[in-house]
Amino acid sequence: MKNPKDYITQNKDRFINELIELLKIPSVSADPAFSQDVLDASETIKTSLLEAGCDIAEIHETDGYPIVYGEKIIDPNLPTVLVYGHYDVQPADPLELWDSPPYEPVIKKTDLHPEGAIFARGSCDDKGQMYMHVKALEYMVKTDQLPCNVKFMIEGEEEVGSDNLGIYVANNKEKLANDIILISDTGMIANDVPSITTGLRGLSYVEVEVTGPNRDLHSGLYGGAVANPINILAKMIASLHDENNHITVAGFYDKVEELSSEERAEMAKAPFSLEDYQDALAIESVYGEKGYTTNERNSIRPTLDVNGIWGGYIGEGAKTVIASQAFAKISMRLVPHQDWEEITELFSSHFERIAPKGVTVKVTPHHGGQGYVTPIDTIGYKAASKAYETTFGKKPIPQRSGGSIPIVALFEKELESKTILMGFGLDSDAIHSPNEHFGVWNYLKGIETIPYFYQNFTEMKK
Amino acid sequence: MKNPKDYITQNKDRFINELIELLKIPSVSADPAFSQDVLDASETIKTSLLEAGCDIAEIHETDGYPIVYGEKIIDPNLPTVLVYGHYDVQPADPLELWDSPPYEPVIKKTDLHPEGAIFARGSCDDKGQMYMHVKALEYMVKTDQLPCNVKFMIEGEEEVGSDNLGIYVANNKEKLANDIILISDTGMIANDVPSITTGLRGLSYVEVEVTGPNRDLHSGLYGGAVANPINILAKMIASLHDENNHITVAGFYDKVEELSSEERAEMAKAPFSLEDYQDALAIESVYGEKGYTTNERNSIRPTLDVNGIWGGYIGEGAKTVIASQAFAKISMRLVPHQDWEEITELFSSHFERIAPKGVTVKVTPHHGGQGYVTPIDTIGYKAASKAYETTFGKKPIPQRSGGSIPIVALFEKELESKTILMGFGLDSDAIHSPNEHFGVWNYLKGIETIPYFYQNFTEMKK
Repeated sequence: MKNPKDYITQNKDRFINELIELLKIPSVSADPAFSQDVLDASETIKTSLLEAGCDIAEIHETDGYPIVYGEKIIDPNLPTVLVYGHYDVQPADPLELWDSPPYEPVIKKTDLHPEGAIFARGSCDDKGQMYMHVKALEYMVKTDQLPCNVKFMIEGEEEVGSDNLGIYVANNKEKLANDIILISDTGMIANDVPSITTGLRGLSYVEVEVTGPNRDLHSGLYGGAVANPINILAKMIASLHDENNHITVAGFYDKVEELSSEERAEMAKAPFSLEDYQDALAIESVYGEKGYTTNERNSIRPTLDVNGIWGGYIGEGAKTVIASQAFAKISMRLVPHQDWEEITELFSSHFERIAPKGVTVKVTPHHGGQGYVTPIDTIGYKAASKAYETTFGKKPIPQRSGGSIPIVALFEKELESKTILMGFGLDSDAIHSPNEHFGVWNYLKGIETIPYFYQNFTEMKK
Repeated sequence: MKNPKDYITQNKDRFINELIELLKIPSVSADPAFSQDVLDASETIKTSLLEAGCDIAEIHETDGYPIVYGEKIIDPNLPTVLVYGHYDVQPADPLELWDSPPYEPVIKKTDLHPEGAIFARGSCDDKGQMYMHVKALEYMVKTDQLPCNVKFMIEGEEEVGSDNLGIYVANNKEKLANDIILISDTGMIANDVPSITTGLRGLSYVEVEVTGPNRDLHSGLYGGAVANPINILAKMIASLHDENNHITVAGFYDKVEELSSEERAEMAKAPFSLEDYQDALAIESVYGEKGYTTNERNSIRPTLDVNGIWGGYIGEGAKTVIASQAFAKISMRLVPHQDWEEITELFSSHFERIAPKGVTVKVTPHHGGQGYVTPIDTIGYKAASKAYETTFGKKPIPQRSGGSIPIVALFEKELESKTILMGFGLDSDAIHSPNEHFGVWNYLKGIETIPYFYQNFTEMKK
């Protein structure tokens, strides 16, 4: 394969501008207020796939947001790569913490991105990373170097649990048949420390509701005499971790995969500075499960975090009220062998059991997904590793991620193929946070690296 | 004194309509969005005082919302009653729980108010109860029966801590000089069980802020590895009560007045049905400090309640975020001898001390006030008791309230006079809650009872 660098240099401005246009669409799947924008984003993706060289690109309706399907089949006897990505984004709030509006992309230099980074919601997760694949296809098609078949499946509900994608995949196994699935929706260690994600955590996301009295009460007249749902919720949440920060939900750890000391020693070799980590977050100390390091806590260990809490008077000033209800959104990151549906049930029954008399509790499961591990002795992994070696000049490190892409386990089950997670973002890119950004260097490096994967994979498959 | 009933019957519709007009003004002192409405309410009060018969009614500016001062001095040698009330109201949210809009008053019958109740924010607390005094004055002046001097001091910041009233009182001692202070901002046991409030709890209201990482984080990448401010806040709040629901803030109970077993036995004689109490709130069980009854817990015992909590993603759907910050509004009801400023300091240092490494904590005091006890062997109490006996046909029960009117202790200190708390609302009137209401019967009964207090007090003072 010819070095893609020349093509990328010639088309760099266009590549960036096309992504910027896509980022201007506030395709927030969690909030119905943005539903037209989510649909607009799907149309934009369809058009871009056709322009990049797909023979077919279609909007496939679901019960939720549509899936954009595209393909370029050059020879049924050649291997097929299925690219998965998503065009929906996380909500942007809290808006006041953004330095520039989330849907008005700007390029600014940062310490880690001296060549500039595009600041916008979705720049890294996942519009920017997904669009690398569209542009990599363009390069291969326009320069007549596509070595195999390619299919695209770009969904619009990843940030809300991919419920309809599961149904779509199960109903379209033949159409989606492939030899390997390629996803860029994870990160790498650093621009000079490339890595490939070999593990993902599973997820169980629930919402809990604690109801006490049938109406808000005056805290003077009733304070001290009835269960205050906020105090009770706080107490229940607090009890979900013990003094060693182990999770107390009965049965929670039963199926957790325990790594051998060799595996943990291998993990510990990844470059990591606790001081830098703490400095970057402006915290005095890390915090987590006793007996595990920071990198273990956020990758091979399951966790339980409150993602949102609300109840009572949260406006300006003071209101002396005892709220009738209090709410929290709680998510658990799971490790391989923990079944998310089983964990959701364990959580629900535990949470209902620990509610004191005087309140009632409701647990509503939101969504979830299984964890995943990619073996590193497969052709897919080796093809990716060699591609990074070519473009980064060094071998990438296999790394377990703490994040979740719930659909990956389902792909393996339904489509019987492995997934390779080639992520080019950095942990510090603030995905899901205000001021999300994606390095211009990383964006272009992804476009450069992906074609080598196609070449390596096709050759190794022969 | 002639029986006021005839005058009230003749003017009933006008009395109700005037109150309804006042209730249409959304004078929410806690929210700057309503500042013009708060000012409008003060003007309305001024006008109504003049129309009721005051010789002077003035708007007195403060650093916050103004105080409406009115007076009718008939003879400097006669006793003077100072009426205190407030024209500001609590915020109305959560708006969706109101059956009718909070500032569009409607009269509806309820089980406890078969003659109808006025539903509107402020109907009971305190516009309705305050306006009884304006109409009682009108009756006494128009029928030429006012037996003594009267002064009005109606403020607009009661719901946010009365900060400027304290300054105003300290600076206007001579103008406000009086023999007794009369307030209707409390409740009574039932329409057929009149009671006079003889004790109020003090209050310390604070806002707490827990800060972890310097930005919102992705819960997959950082979950389990850094202190989650919401989980930490929940844990800190949970630790503020022990397993017996005693408050754990060091030194909190040091100055708490412990009642004798005789006094507690006396209290236990007040009519109370635990079953009715629980049914009215739709709770299966009460909840509170071990060793005390419900009526003790909400009157003679100090409490700590979270009035509001928020942090992270609280919109629709799911967001897998670890919030940078979490917040709560916490109030403590205090009993006589607990000093609110000392308690606020004890709380602040306790809360800062229990914060784990990995987060920082900020405690911002909102406002507070001392508790208060009225002796029942004074002329003021006896004059009120006799007035109730005349209009209700039975002696009122002296009762400690769990609520707070922080300014009462200050009045005693600065003006050296006692306060009589003649409340005509019911605990079930939902003050500070959605669907606040005030019985039409109670409103008119207040107007009927108040003139007898003036008469009794003036005679007993001779």
